Amino acid sequence: MPGAGVSAGPRMGSKYPPSMQCFLPLWTLVLEVALIVIFFFFTSYDTSSQDPKKLMETYRVLQDVTIMVALGFGFINSSLRRYGWSSVAFNLFLLALVVQWAVLLDGFLEQLSPKKVVIKLSSIKLATMSAMSVLISAGAVLGKTNLVQLVLMALVEVTAFDVMRMIQRKYFLKDNHVNMMHIHVFAAYFGLMVAWRFRRPLHERVMEKDQTAKSSSLFGMLGTLFLWIFWPSFNSALLLDSPNERKNAMFNTYYALAVSAVTAISVSSLAHPQGKINMNHIHNAVLAGGVAVGASCYLISSPWLAMVLGLTAGLISTGGALCLPMYFNHVLGIHDTGGVYYTFGLPGLLGEIAHIVLITYQVDQTKTAMINHQLLLDIGALSLAMAMGLLIGLLTGLVLNLKIWRGPHVSKYFDDQAFWEFPHLAVGF
Amino acid sequence: MPGAGVSAGPRMGSKYPPSMQCFLPLWTLVLEVALIVIFFFFTSYDTSSQDPKKLMETYRVLQDVTIMVALGFGFINSSLRRYGWSSVAFNLFLLALVVQWAVLLDGFLEQLSPKKVVIKLSSIKLATMSAMSVLISAGAVLGKTNLVQLVLMALVEVTAFDVMRMIQRKYFLKDNHVNMMHIHVFAAYFGLMVAWRFRRPLHERVMEKDQTAKSSSLFGMLGTLFLWIFWPSFNSALLLDSPNERKNAMFNTYYALAVSAVTAISVSSLAHPQGKINMNHIHNAVLAGGVAVGASCYLISSPWLAMVLGLTAGLISTGGALCLPMYFNHVLGIHDTGGVYYTFGLPGLLGEIAHIVLITYQVDQTKTAMINHQLLLDIGALSLAMAMGLLIGLLTGLVLNLKIWRGPHVSKYFDDQAFWEFPHLAVGF
Amino acid sequence: MPGAGVSAGPRMGSKYPPSMQCFLPLWTLVLEVALIVIFFFFTSYDTSSQDPKKLMETYRVLQDVTIMVALGFGFINSSLRRYGWSSVAFNLFLLALVVQWAVLLDGFLEQLSPKKVVIKLSSIKLATMSAMSVLISAGAVLGKTNLVQLVLMALVEVTAFDVMRMIQRKYFLKDNHVNMMHIHVFAAYFGLMVAWRFRRPLHERVMEKDQTAKSSSLFGMLGTLFLWIFWPSFNSALLLDSPNERKNAMFNTYYALAVSAVTAISVSSLAHPQGKINMNHIHNAVLAGGVAVGASCYLISSPWLAMVLGLTAGLISTGGALCLPMYFNHVLGIHDTGGVYYTFGLPGLLGEIAHIVLITYQVDQTKTAMINHQLLLDIGALSLAMAMGLLIGLLTGLVLNLKIWRGPHVSKYFDDQAFWEFPHLAVGF
Repeated sequence: MPGAGVSAGPRMGSKYPPSMQCFLPLWTLVLEVALIVIFFFFTSYDTSSQDPKKLMETYRVLQDVTIMVALGFGFINSSLRRYGWSSVAFNLFLLALVVQWAVLLDGFLEQLSPKKVVIKLSSIKLATMSAMSVLISAGAVLGKTNLVQLVLMALVEVTAFDVMRMIQRKYFLKDNHVNMMHIHVFAAYFGLMVAWRFRRPLHERVMEKDQTAKSSSLFGMLGTLFLWIFWPSFNSALLLDSPNERKNAMFNTYYALAVSAVTAISVSSLAHPQGKINMNHIHNAVLAGGVAVGASCYLISSPWLAMVLGLTAGLISTGGALCLPMYFNHVLGIHDTGGVYYTFGLPGLLGEIAHIVLITYQVDQTKTAMINHQLLLDIGALSLAMAMGLLIGLLTGLVLNLKIWRGPHVSKYFDDQAFWEFPHLAVGF
Repeated sequence: MPGAGVSAGPRMGSKYPPSMQCFLPLWTLVLEVALIVIFFFFTSYDTSSQDPKKLMETYRVLQDVTIMVALGFGFINSSLRRYGWSSVAFNLFLLALVVQWAVLLDGFLEQLSPKKVVIKLSSIKLATMSAMSVLISAGAVLGKTNLVQLVLMALVEVTAFDVMRMIQRKYFLKDNHVNMMHIHVFAAYFGLMVAWRFRRPLHERVMEKDQTAKSSSLFGMLGTLFLWIFWPSFNSALLLDSPNERKNAMFNTYYALAVSAVTAISVSSLAHPQGKINMNHIHNAVLAGGVAVGASCYLISSPWLAMVLGLTAGLISTGGALCLPMYFNHVLGIHDTGGVYYTFGLPGLLGEIAHIVLITYQVDQTKTAMINHQLLLDIGALSLAMAMGLLIGLLTGLVLNLKIWRGPHVSKYFDDQAFWEFPHLAVGF
Repeated sequence: MPGAGVSAGPRMGSKYPPSMQCFLPLWTLVLEVALIVIFFFFTSYDTSSQDPKKLMETYRVLQDVTIMVALGFGFINSSLRRYGWSSVAFNLFLLALVVQWAVLLDGFLEQLSPKKVVIKLSSIKLATMSAMSVLISAGAVLGKTNLVQLVLMALVEVTAFDVMRMIQRKYFLKDNHVNMMHIHVFAAYFGLMVAWRFRRPLHERVMEKDQTAKSSSLFGMLGTLFLWIFWPSFNSALLLDSPNERKNAMFNTYYALAVSAVTAISVSSLAHPQGKINMNHIHNAVLAGGVAVGASCYLISSPWLAMVLGLTAGLISTGGALCLPMYFNHVLGIHDTGGVYYTFGLPGLLGEIAHIVLITYQVDQTKTAMINHQLLLDIGALSLAMAMGLLIGLLTGLVLNLKIWRGPHVSKYFDDQAFWEFPHLAVGF
């Protein structure tokens, strides 16, 4: 749309409050220095001599997870017509900041005492996975917040998520894999609640920006493919110690992803009167299988079950993408930019329920008491994840909505212009 | 080209038959459910306790191959000006579907009895590699078929390819690496024959869409680079058991790729009156070295031979790209969209011939009888691959050309509009 | 900008000298054949039976480095509005050519005798890392040279770099990791000196092309992210033999990168009157932490030091991007297209100084004589790298500036049109 941007475009941003300038660098540089000071006093590297092969294996998994969060989540939301730069760069910023904070937090919560935290390669892996919760939630508020608000949200969310994981570990006896897999449900509800506080009547002009363009959609597809390819690494990342469970996790994730990709594309075509496929459905629903199989991937012992989960997740996710936006927008007043609820929330919920059913089924059938106890723990853990996501999300949304943060005006939603210095020629897309 | 798409563009597709809607989702969902049922009755996971290090190694190779097929093949053809979405997404769809089918097929053909198939990580690796045959052939018919036709073609092709591999294994005594490397010749001829049945006089307006645009070409380059980087993994993927052969395979592929990249760019510049380079040559010919060295990569014991193969392949491939399209279009009436014949067909043929020469040379020189026998087996295997590719490809082309599939009208060739729901703003590219 | 390219664009390039056609393919094909002949007489593969696990580990590292140089460096400079094709493709061309030459050169310089060079997988890894020096320098002259000039520059530079590394190994007792890490300083100064010889008064029309466009910038971001993700592999690539140093290198690089990403984005926003961020700062400064920590990453034993280095590097790099271009352009007459000086030069210098300080500090405090000797060696090695970069760069610049190479006219700077055959529709960006 060359020309439009030049003549009438909001380039100069005359209404844009100049105070973000004071806030953001001050905030983040002070934060960064504070982090360095804390690292100085409270951390040390793990100097125990490890098996080098195990070390390399951990490094490979860390790398796969980093590819997912930096490239996958960076590009999956870059399909917004005028918001590609912010999607990718803010994603990197949040990731880099949150990983540092999460390593510290994990360490302190693990030992529950202020002595020195020993940093291992696996701590960074865990911190990167925790950071993913922030990147999921950010999808729901994308384009409606400035970077200061995102940073605040990120720090609160990852803290809440890590505290929730600690509680699940200590009181619900859930190991790291199981408590980490609550990430989808937790982050989706958290993101939705924050987005709810940012409901504004969107002008048509703004709605137009909440669209994809042809080449941006290819970038979005790139992000989706990175996530799709490396999802088996994510689901098996915390099962390094038991090769058989790890193998199962890879197998099942692979099958669930394959089936959900086929399902998503088919159903998207079924829903259109002329059989056309919707690119946004693909971006989201293709991954639903990986999300849904996450919690139980180590348990499932034959492919058909993973495939059924993938099929169901694909149906739910595409169905959600078809029906929910309208309902969310008009009835609940939630504008879920990246479709977080049907990409992560619903399939995640399905996965958790499947996990509870499977684990109850596997507990020795005779011991009814034990089943009940187990069931209680499982349902408790899931409720905790949802409750904390909803509650802390709501509180965060309320705080972020304060005037002092000078969030972008609704007419500047979904627009890179508010945040980026453009050379005067870089108009259009 | 903003505006054009809006005013005169074939957006509403009034002539587009609405029946694909009934076909595709019905077809693929039924197929998916059928696959789940077959998996339920006929498969189980490999539960034998494996060496965890070997498992991880297999997983890494599987991942490399998945990157090649999902990202590499997905994006290499995305440089068509108006067909980027379909290239990438249909590629993913075919991959996800075919891998499921190929795992079953490989299992049944391996044991030749209807007992339970044990799925290993290496089965998925093999299935993903077989799926590549479909993605290669799809390049030749790209933009001229709808998704139903592609799915049918994919299922037929991967079945034929796996049967051919089984015959080669049983009767021609070719191990998995050697029979897999016939993929290039088989898939290229298969694709060409199918494309031959889709010859239509192309209007100029349609021809214009069969062009690249600047940013799409960068996506194409991205796909090329993924293939280029991971090709050594592909060529050595089935040599996991013999470290020395594997090392040779990596070395030789690496050298052949480097030389063919240099050759392709140089020759492309040589052919233009003003010394300009053609981007399409780069996309294709850069990979020719990897294709050509595929069959014999484990045998070659010094770099110069791999480099000579890379040089020859680069020459043949760029030469083909310069001369063949005209000839194919006007004399044979084959429109080879993605240049499959000179990207995979010709270099593959070169590679097979080189392999036959090398293996004949290595057999003990005194035993003439043995040489003859070996030669016979080799030539037989190659002929089988070509013959099956041509024949099954022709039959598939005939079937796909039936009216019942409601393929896109020739005026809709190379156009995403027929398959994708666009937001009304996403015009141009 | 549809239309512009068609009507008034420099498509036909009537002033463009047709002689590049004769030069380039002749040159490079003869060179390629010469390389094959040298490989025929002077090389053989390593046939000693190696530990397969170690082999695979080396292969993984080689792959990571290849991803960095082919994808990372290919795309990081593709954000020039009209120069994306050349950035990516010339990068691949130079990489493929230089790796072949560097393997030979490394071999001969290692043994300093003309007997057969034994090629190992680790030789290719080393050669790929040496090739990076060329790709760094190429960033400074990007868009101002034709491919013949780039090839010449590449061969001279990699030869000089390998000779410098050999001298450092033999006479300054620096091991491979330490001498390799001089790559940033060497390549930056080399590139700057070459760019200095290409100073021309740039017309405004040309300056306009030296801009980014929206979707090109996402490609640039893609390159940046690949580099960011795999930088820990690069910094630890030559430490395969000592697991503890390798682990430290990964940790420290990871932390330095995270901090420099946060710093770069914050400071970029601080510098703009409205708090807007500049995409070019992100592309460059995000990596500064990895560069700065390169030399000393194996030494640093607690995260805070790496973080301080990352913070300082981020400040220096963004500061450089803000102030230096103006100064370089107008006072020194150097037009540093890719910002090589503040991306690699300054952070590299910081890293070398930090390394000298750290290593001096670690030498036993009582032996003053030894400290002095060590200090002398360290400062000598750094001075050698800078001096050779400056001197050989200047000489190369002088030679490349000769009329016989027929470099592009200043009005064709930063323009793909001079090098690429475009289909007549591929206008705009």
